[in-house]
Amino acid sequence: MTQPVAGKRIVVRYEPDGVRTFEDDVATEWPVTIVLNGEEFATLVCSPEEVEDLAVGYMASEGVLADIAALEDLSYDDRTGTVYVEIAGVDSWLIDSGSKRVLTSCCGKSRQGFVFYADMRTAREIESRLIKLTYDSCLSMMRAMESKSGLFKATGGVHNAALFHADGTLLLARTDIGRHNAIDKLYGYCLRNGVSMADKVLAFSGRVSSEVLLKAAKMRCETLLSKSAVTDLAINLAEDLGITIVGFIRGGAMNVYSHADRITVGE
Amino acid sequence: MTQPVAGKRIVVRYEPDGVRTFEDDVATEWPVTIVLNGEEFATLVCSPEEVEDLAVGYMASEGVLADIAALEDLSYDDRTGTVYVEIAGVDSWLIDSGSKRVLTSCCGKSRQGFVFYADMRTAREIESRLIKLTYDSCLSMMRAMESKSGLFKATGGVHNAALFHADGTLLLARTDIGRHNAIDKLYGYCLRNGVSMADKVLAFSGRVSSEVLLKAAKMRCETLLSKSAVTDLAINLAEDLGITIVGFIRGGAMNVYSHADRITVGE
Repeated sequence: MTQPVAGKRIVVRYEPDGVRTFEDDVATEWPVTIVLNGEEFATLVCSPEEVEDLAVGYMASEGVLADIAALEDLSYDDRTGTVYVEIAGVDSWLIDSGSKRVLTSCCGKSRQGFVFYADMRTAREIESRLIKLTYDSCLSMMRAMESKSGLFKATGGVHNAALFHADGTLLLARTDIGRHNAIDKLYGYCLRNGVSMADKVLAFSGRVSSEVLLKAAKMRCETLLSKSAVTDLAINLAEDLGITIVGFIRGGAMNVYSHADRITVGE
Repeated sequence: MTQPVAGKRIVVRYEPDGVRTFEDDVATEWPVTIVLNGEEFATLVCSPEEVEDLAVGYMASEGVLADIAALEDLSYDDRTGTVYVEIAGVDSWLIDSGSKRVLTSCCGKSRQGFVFYADMRTAREIESRLIKLTYDSCLSMMRAMESKSGLFKATGGVHNAALFHADGTLLLARTDIGRHNAIDKLYGYCLRNGVSMADKVLAFSGRVSSEVLLKAAKMRCETLLSKSAVTDLAINLAEDLGITIVGFIRGGAMNVYSHADRITVGE
């Protein structure tokens, strides 16, 4: 039994010309527990699709899965919402410190700068310039991400994340009720399928906090595009880590917050 | 030294009629560590204002502070970002289970239904009908909340939460880069100042997930208004707990998802 990502609910709709009752699509909120090497590790509340990718991306983001070759087994019981992950060579303290964490749909963990060992190990400065984008291509990538998302159109209640090739063509788009989950699903897919993220552009519907920026850094993405706002801490980290952030991509305009040399007006 | 809630950053702005460089307001992302009875309990990433209220509201949401009379001491060191809280009669396992949690700006913890002891203890069904709202009053409360938020207008990067009296007049509005923090700041203020929330309306800019709904239930708010989408699990909980959810309040329209009898067209 696969869980649906949205369900029908009876809604009373008030509009200027009257009140009507109708059946609307509502996003499903589904808890998934990750069992790592036989121990409960974390519970993520998510949209129940691409759950295996989500688990792999999450474990990589957390620094528990430093190398995809260490992933020895992965299976998902969609009846109980449990993902079983076997990873070789995991430091036992990482499991202990992560034990029984329960993360909601927009959740994760991080702290100012690089307080966490997991972040120190996985986030390094990006000096390459594989990506050069024009103003127009940034706008069209955001449009392409949104038009791709059926769940977003149906429910309005999910976040979108997508990876694009440097020429602006779409590689992969994912949606989730959780901001971080949508990105982790991309990350997990790329790791499981041997797809390099270093020459891709990461596009995102949500706000860019320090944690979102650190995820991009771990994925080795040079450029992060967002429809929404950016925090001061995310900008500080992006400057240090060599990442270009473009935010507030909406209404035909956009703001470049760091390493602006990767963006040009175009011809 | 009080931390500012926003700072100036140099931004390269692309618009259809050209590119310009200017200084823009960016929301501050500030980590605050709560030390409970001498032990590090959790770190919240937040907008650095009303931090004491945030800490009290968070501890109450988590079920650690079941009665405000148990709050024996509260102080904030804004230089290090540390809140020191002394609460009498805290179960030691609650501190242990919460120990060293680090929560990002949109984070918390919960799970389907009532998995957590803290939720079971604090969320009970609401049977009262102290609140009766008209369509127009719902729309005007959402407008009032947004117009009140200077930080939202300056940065576009924060969430808003507000409490209204049953007649639609504003009692209190708070903003934070974290969805949950904005609500916890209201909760903490009311607890510290002896303000009943049972006869108030809770308005919120963000999506209504199960966790947001549970916060409203703990605050004993009968009615939750949101600009954004609602998840299926939040609707299930609202039906069980007797709470009216009104979502997608935007563009002059809105959807009522549960206990629709508290909302009328009005005269």
